[in-house]
Amino acid sequence: MDSTTLLYHLRQTIPETPLHTVSIDYAQRHRIELNFAARLSQLAGASSHRVLPLDLKQIGGSPLTDPDLDVPAASEQAQVTTVVPFRNMLLVTLAAACGERLGAFDIYLSPVRDDHEAYRDCRREFYDSLEESLRLGATRDTPFTIHTPLVDYSKADVVALGMKLGVPYELTHTCYAGTRPACGVCDACSERLNAFGELHATDPLDYEQRPAL
Amino acid sequence: MDSTTLLYHLRQTIPETPLHTVSIDYAQRHRIELNFAARLSQLAGASSHRVLPLDLKQIGGSPLTDPDLDVPAASEQAQVTTVVPFRNMLLVTLAAACGERLGAFDIYLSPVRDDHEAYRDCRREFYDSLEESLRLGATRDTPFTIHTPLVDYSKADVVALGMKLGVPYELTHTCYAGTRPACGVCDACSERLNAFGELHATDPLDYEQRPAL
Repeated sequence: MDSTTLLYHLRQTIPETPLHTVSIDYAQRHRIELNFAARLSQLAGASSHRVLPLDLKQIGGSPLTDPDLDVPAASEQAQVTTVVPFRNMLLVTLAAACGERLGAFDIYLSPVRDDHEAYRDCRREFYDSLEESLRLGATRDTPFTIHTPLVDYSKADVVALGMKLGVPYELTHTCYAGTRPACGVCDACSERLNAFGELHATDPLDYEQRPAL
Repeated sequence: MDSTTLLYHLRQTIPETPLHTVSIDYAQRHRIELNFAARLSQLAGASSHRVLPLDLKQIGGSPLTDPDLDVPAASEQAQVTTVVPFRNMLLVTLAAACGERLGAFDIYLSPVRDDHEAYRDCRREFYDSLEESLRLGATRDTPFTIHTPLVDYSKADVVALGMKLGVPYELTHTCYAGTRPACGVCDACSERLNAFGELHATDPLDYEQRPAL
């Protein structure tokens, strides 16, 4: 939801700039998102789309990558257990490695405010530091910029922006359980449904169940 | 050569501390090094050894991961073409992800002075920044420390230290071409042979050819 909204936002704000999209196959249980990412990249007119493999299953410990662990329901208030250590740091660094080859030094990603509490790697101060690390670690003296234009948005702000931009939310994937219809009870589904609820809008996605808000 | 020397150095300087070793299978042409790393970890008494996969072949562009590109001879002065973008940053971040699971927050690696020119991610200022990024991106507020005790050593300094420590250099792998006997002409072989040469010592490894120094 967040990445797709960002993609459509960029398509409108920097229409002349070629956009190369990168998905990471990190052995996530919800790997179905990779198919939707490819389709949405094409719909939004991205110049290229790549899927990079990064097997984080072996790091273990998160239900997002370990099929033996249950994805917690939002009601369990256990979002921190879904953390895949340093996932965003690895994602951005891999994107930068692609960028070096492509000559693309502007990296965009979409952490949002509502994730700051459970996921420390969704905060801007982390990306300021990471930008410096990329600058110092690049093959040549090339300044990478990490753009996080939605970092102060709530999930509802994201949906409000996306609805204005005509984002086809029925093609986005959010559910941590990785099912279609979406489970409706995991943290990710719950936050998404709450965001649409706050706006008195209807999420066009199919759900197994829609909890009363 | 550098990592093994570091491992033996740690075994002597912090003998009571459990050491967990991590190798990264990044689709390197010289993947034979992974076998030697496992054996050396065992010999040095490491508590565990893991091999994490990280397919950097798809980033492309380096002869270290692309079998269609030739590994340059040292005489071509083309060491910069062997750079795998952000390799060390990805390696350290993956090691930190393992560390979070293991409760190990001290990361050791062995960049050395002679690599500073071709590989910017072998400089201490880069690791200072990366340490800060790890601190800000960790799941909980945990300070990681990245130790680089050999960062001001020349390759000859490394060999001198290793010879004092009894490092079995015949079991280390250095050659970028990934062959045993080692090629003797790539940058990595050439630097290694020069280091032993400076010390008037004989490298116990077998080489296809040993260039006159």
